Amino acid sequence: MSTVTGVQAPKGLEGVVATTSSICYIDGDAGVLAYRGYDIHELADHSTFEEVCYLLWFGRLPKPAELRQLQDRLAAARTLDPAIIAQLRAVPRHVLPMDALRTLVSALSYYDHDNAKNDHDSNVNKAIRLTSQIAILVANYDRVRDGKPLVEPDGSLSHAANFLLMLNGTKPSATAERALDIALILHADHELNASTFAARVVAATLSDMHSAITAAIGALKGPLHGGANEAVFKILMEIDKAHADPVEHIKGMLAQKKKVPGFGHRVYHTEDPRATHLRKMSEDLGKASGNPKWFDYSNKIEQYVKADKKLNANVDFYSASTYHTLGIAVDLFTPIFAVSRVSGWTAHVIEQLDDNRLIRPRADYIGPEYPQRYVEIDVR
Amino acid sequence: MSTVTGVQAPKGLEGVVATTSSICYIDGDAGVLAYRGYDIHELADHSTFEEVCYLLWFGRLPKPAELRQLQDRLAAARTLDPAIIAQLRAVPRHVLPMDALRTLVSALSYYDHDNAKNDHDSNVNKAIRLTSQIAILVANYDRVRDGKPLVEPDGSLSHAANFLLMLNGTKPSATAERALDIALILHADHELNASTFAARVVAATLSDMHSAITAAIGALKGPLHGGANEAVFKILMEIDKAHADPVEHIKGMLAQKKKVPGFGHRVYHTEDPRATHLRKMSEDLGKASGNPKWFDYSNKIEQYVKADKKLNANVDFYSASTYHTLGIAVDLFTPIFAVSRVSGWTAHVIEQLDDNRLIRPRADYIGPEYPQRYVEIDVR
Repeated sequence: MSTVTGVQAPKGLEGVVATTSSICYIDGDAGVLAYRGYDIHELADHSTFEEVCYLLWFGRLPKPAELRQLQDRLAAARTLDPAIIAQLRAVPRHVLPMDALRTLVSALSYYDHDNAKNDHDSNVNKAIRLTSQIAILVANYDRVRDGKPLVEPDGSLSHAANFLLMLNGTKPSATAERALDIALILHADHELNASTFAARVVAATLSDMHSAITAAIGALKGPLHGGANEAVFKILMEIDKAHADPVEHIKGMLAQKKKVPGFGHRVYHTEDPRATHLRKMSEDLGKASGNPKWFDYSNKIEQYVKADKKLNANVDFYSASTYHTLGIAVDLFTPIFAVSRVSGWTAHVIEQLDDNRLIRPRADYIGPEYPQRYVEIDVR
Repeated sequence: MSTVTGVQAPKGLEGVVATTSSICYIDGDAGVLAYRGYDIHELADHSTFEEVCYLLWFGRLPKPAELRQLQDRLAAARTLDPAIIAQLRAVPRHVLPMDALRTLVSALSYYDHDNAKNDHDSNVNKAIRLTSQIAILVANYDRVRDGKPLVEPDGSLSHAANFLLMLNGTKPSATAERALDIALILHADHELNASTFAARVVAATLSDMHSAITAAIGALKGPLHGGANEAVFKILMEIDKAHADPVEHIKGMLAQKKKVPGFGHRVYHTEDPRATHLRKMSEDLGKASGNPKWFDYSNKIEQYVKADKKLNANVDFYSASTYHTLGIAVDLFTPIFAVSRVSGWTAHVIEQLDDNRLIRPRADYIGPEYPQRYVEIDVR
């Protein structure tokens, strides 16, 4: 018997349509993902992350002058207040990068001159700044913990190339730049995934952009969400260290009732279209680097899990070997997901606020019957 | 035409039953609120905030030894890492207290020795620590910005009395202690309010307690949620400053289509049972302090809005004048809401994780038709 009259939703709100949105189109049966109507394959093949940012924030593809202007604004925002750098340097070495990123993004609000504003244009400004700043935070964080000097941004470079420059201290190859650029495009948005939904729930109280993005980072950290790419690579490393057969290793995990990360998706009932790109990228980068083993392990695991468990690889599975081959530390995989997804999170916050209503569902009470008789403590 | 097959939910998930829960029972038609089956009026009249914490976290009222143990654990957790104090001192003076609280709670994760753990018992430990630490953060923050020395905690005092001691530097009167204690009881939980729902969405990715509570603080900040109590008092101050008639002032606001904060509630269709207590507390404290004007303004506004707009006062309306009469700064009203609500947030995170499923709804796509033809940028 329900205590609430209302729509009884499936657990985890599965299949519940929580809002309308003009940002992301997904057909889970056909394996289609599109931003503002543009198929993800077209965008991955032809566009850039900056173009996708424009598409997400402004609702259409930019003309050349519009794209240049956005590139300039993103480049101009490649700066952090010295107090943020000081906070970043003070992060204890044992801290998980996602905990540091969540804290530092929250602190960015202190120095955002539009912090008190919550109108559409101010939030577009914040979206641009946060997109540049989150990339810099991740790159700087990795340098600081490795005891390396920080690298100045280069305003002439693309978002992907500048990130790799600030991370590694050298300009990336065209191949590496394009690989990361495509990865950023593929991860930019995915409708009401848990972190985006968290951002919209926070934004809908008329709080502010930094509160919403901080919440999203906290949600992305979870192993059932963005944390999965890191978990995938840890398994590949275990296999490598033990010189194990990848399929036997996975069989062992499944025998112990362990979940294999990087497989299955709430929304797709066929191949995740992002996995298609990332598989190819992982293979190409492996070959080009002369070290195809991470792709090989991944591919064997994928074939086994697909055949035996009828589960498809998702966006996290091949992003693991891809990021590793790009020379990125394992515990930065999820932060790099945030480097991309901030574009979608901010687009969703802006959309939420353009036609807002507080997001406040109900719970069906199943606890002790009401009313319980209160008995004074000394006679309990 | 919907792009998604599934339950089409009302905007803001109004009336959608998103989960089962054993924590909070609300009958919005009868004006009933109960924690674990115990009516809020019984708890406000007879229990303490610590007892309510036990009830929320452990599911039943404590026996004397159990309550003493919890009081000891809360008292032992009245400590912040020196690095957190340093961060608190470094917060620029213009920063909103809720932005500082969100950032500092996120940073608390750095120094929580159970940070990597996400099991039931570890999360109860974190709930206890966060409840003590958030109170101390708010009190310390107020002292630091006023240039006053920090006050050491007193392990012999209740949660409410220790907070007022650390805030004001003197032990509170029994009346003030009990008034705050009741306010903390009344604000401790409220089912799937927006901040609690945000916390559960974050927790359901299997992220961690600090990520969930950080998200909740960001949501509570919003003027459609916890930020309303501050907004109420700002109006009372405007009235006072202009020597205006309270009712005429509100009429003016309504004529300008402004929303009057502190009225109406998504769930209650009758008087918010928390408002009943807070109204009486505001009146009693006003009389006792010899300054009943804030209650008088509030009461006149309430009677007018109720008669003319058929809207009932909610929890935020009389908490404004109550907190002010307790000597609390206006911009601490929402942080003090967090001082209480952290007990409910943490209880909900623990409940979510005890039977978890990722919270991931869908959106109905209403954007540009799929597929849009991608045109190269130089020919757009």
